[in-house]
Amino acid sequence: MSEPLTVNGNRLVRRIEELGQIGRDENGTLTRLAASDADKQGRDALVSWMKSIELDIRIDRVGNLFGIWQQGDVSLSPVMAGSHIDTVINAGIYDGCYGVLSGLEVIETLRESGFAPARPIAVAAFTGEEGVRFAPDMIGSLAYVGGSSCEQALATVGTDGKTLGDELMRIGYAGDMAPGTLRPHCYVELHIEQGPVLEHEGFQIGAVESIQGISWQRVVIEGQANHAGTTPMKLRRDAGLAAARIVTYLRDYVGRSNSPTVATVGTMRFEPNAINVIPSRAMLTVDLRDPDEIRLQTGENALCDFLSKLEKEEGTPISLERLARFEPVNFDDRIVALVEQVAREMGLKSRRIASGAGHDAQMIARIAPAAMIFVPSINGISHSPDEFTPPDDLVTGANVLLRVVSNLVKAEFN
Amino acid sequence: MSEPLTVNGNRLVRRIEELGQIGRDENGTLTRLAASDADKQGRDALVSWMKSIELDIRIDRVGNLFGIWQQGDVSLSPVMAGSHIDTVINAGIYDGCYGVLSGLEVIETLRESGFAPARPIAVAAFTGEEGVRFAPDMIGSLAYVGGSSCEQALATVGTDGKTLGDELMRIGYAGDMAPGTLRPHCYVELHIEQGPVLEHEGFQIGAVESIQGISWQRVVIEGQANHAGTTPMKLRRDAGLAAARIVTYLRDYVGRSNSPTVATVGTMRFEPNAINVIPSRAMLTVDLRDPDEIRLQTGENALCDFLSKLEKEEGTPISLERLARFEPVNFDDRIVALVEQVAREMGLKSRRIASGAGHDAQMIARIAPAAMIFVPSINGISHSPDEFTPPDDLVTGANVLLRVVSNLVKAEFN
Repeated sequence: MSEPLTVNGNRLVRRIEELGQIGRDENGTLTRLAASDADKQGRDALVSWMKSIELDIRIDRVGNLFGIWQQGDVSLSPVMAGSHIDTVINAGIYDGCYGVLSGLEVIETLRESGFAPARPIAVAAFTGEEGVRFAPDMIGSLAYVGGSSCEQALATVGTDGKTLGDELMRIGYAGDMAPGTLRPHCYVELHIEQGPVLEHEGFQIGAVESIQGISWQRVVIEGQANHAGTTPMKLRRDAGLAAARIVTYLRDYVGRSNSPTVATVGTMRFEPNAINVIPSRAMLTVDLRDPDEIRLQTGENALCDFLSKLEKEEGTPISLERLARFEPVNFDDRIVALVEQVAREMGLKSRRIASGAGHDAQMIARIAPAAMIFVPSINGISHSPDEFTPPDDLVTGANVLLRVVSNLVKAEFN
Repeated sequence: MSEPLTVNGNRLVRRIEELGQIGRDENGTLTRLAASDADKQGRDALVSWMKSIELDIRIDRVGNLFGIWQQGDVSLSPVMAGSHIDTVINAGIYDGCYGVLSGLEVIETLRESGFAPARPIAVAAFTGEEGVRFAPDMIGSLAYVGGSSCEQALATVGTDGKTLGDELMRIGYAGDMAPGTLRPHCYVELHIEQGPVLEHEGFQIGAVESIQGISWQRVVIEGQANHAGTTPMKLRRDAGLAAARIVTYLRDYVGRSNSPTVATVGTMRFEPNAINVIPSRAMLTVDLRDPDEIRLQTGENALCDFLSKLEKEEGTPISLERLARFEPVNFDDRIVALVEQVAREMGLKSRRIASGAGHDAQMIARIAPAAMIFVPSINGISHSPDEFTPPDDLVTGANVLLRVVSNLVKAEFN
């Protein structure tokens, strides 16, 4: 029995670090926003690596970038691995890039080994996954699957007032292929977990079976400003108190529910925000997530009921505005089971997991069988320079991807 | 029996309105900060009214301004009525000014009536009661009673970088009398309530028996920033949640205590304040007030115990910083009883009340028998252009002051 095939771990880690140097400012802060000069440099590096192994480079009109290893029956759709290479502001080097460069590494390894795939294998880098410059997030993969029109995506105005279309043109990454032309046979995205579960529970691999549904709402509470020293408690309409009761209610509700529901109040503002004035207004946001749509709706409804009650109790009118809403996405169970099987064969500890964050894979799942593979994030930190996954874990994840892709080339889906 | 003596209500109200026009910007916003050009104009108007009835004008080194009706035995210390004429930013016209102009009106009325006091009567306008430009508040009366040195007060740097001493010199109100030289026989301050109690309970006069003790503290909670979607609830250290628990704790504590204690969280800040990030830090302020020092300390200690418990429960280190602390001040019971007696004789509904806000009278109480008289504030609003007390209530309060002062001229204190 021959030694099992493995990726070139040094090459993978070196490329992750090299790409991670592109887009740093004079203080060393990494920011590579979609369709920026730094994004162009990052794309150029990726394209040069793709070209070094003679991949067929394709770019669609919204800038999604593909490198296709045209092997086997080239009339068949490719097995695709990918993610994105744009970053948040003051980013780490792993989010997205790890998945793209691992896809590239898998193809390079298979090519070097003389592997003869039955169909093409492609690596993809989707445009603007982070949504920092151009909203919404996953703008590239959304257009790719037809969730928005190409024209709509290109007309999107960024935080700096420029459109995605103009900026893609400027950096030379506005292709002429209609998004979605290159339909994948199936799609696998390798990614850092961006949460602490795998590390905390001692797993090396997460077989991602779903992406949580996300509900973002803004709550505005109207109170009455009054003197903190002279207004008896019973005559107060304190917007800040009502805001605090919402925060503790959400925590207690989620605690009671004994489910994977998570609720977060990440932003809070008081007006006039003076030490001796009862808050006349409080504004907060609620981020509610659940892998189950019915449970997510139950949580939203429970919050709504609580706000009605609170409004009466505190005499503070409360308004609720929906900011964003995504239903949960379930990945293809055959691919999820394959990830688990590969991990088992490799002697790795794995568990099924729901992704708390959004990923391009949730878009691709609309048009093709898709799933994700997670590796641990130390302390669950991401979107930060402190984002870290040890090299051994990165290489382990890439080897899982290698075996999963090798298997998917043979798989039939219907 | 002759008609009882009453003040000239029209003159009083007209002067309040006239002084209230001084210091308005092009939008009509009233701001007359201590030792500003607007304060100079306000002082000039006051001095001209004092001179029109031949009061003896005295100004001490920190700018406290006195008009003395030198009558009776001029070797005796004067009965003093007063307050302040500086304002907050975007102020109303009553806070402070009402007390000063009523003191002036009382002297003018007595003088016109041929009243022959046994000792001098003075009206005082203390410097910088509001503390908006020069901290602390009551900076003039504090120096007046020796609570700070004259040098310390004059060296105080304002929000605009200028010192009180230089600014008083510039506007021509740096006197040469040492603060406290003019020691009062007793002191009465007529003021709007700045709270809703009198109006809400249907009283025309408040006989202010005390000023609440004030405890201002800043609470800083250290949490851990993490992804709102990927961090399970049980692994969170959420500074925002801990902050909310403090707000609801304080309300519930005060609710249970069944005492006049008031607690307010007026300011709140989350970091990084992002919708999908668990707050890594929360900062809030606690304003705790009570007319009883022991009960105020009990409240502070209870908060401290709660924070220790919370810190462990939530895994969020909490620090507490004292920003300001004033013990409650009890006014002279003989003067408080006199206010009640006068109100009764005039057929007015009065009640004893604790002041929730700080006033110059609490400083003067350190060196002389002192008390205050409150009139209703509509909706309890003050420090706002919406501050309002109906003219009839203003005149009623001034008539109470008139009778109280007339009596105090005869009173002996020991």
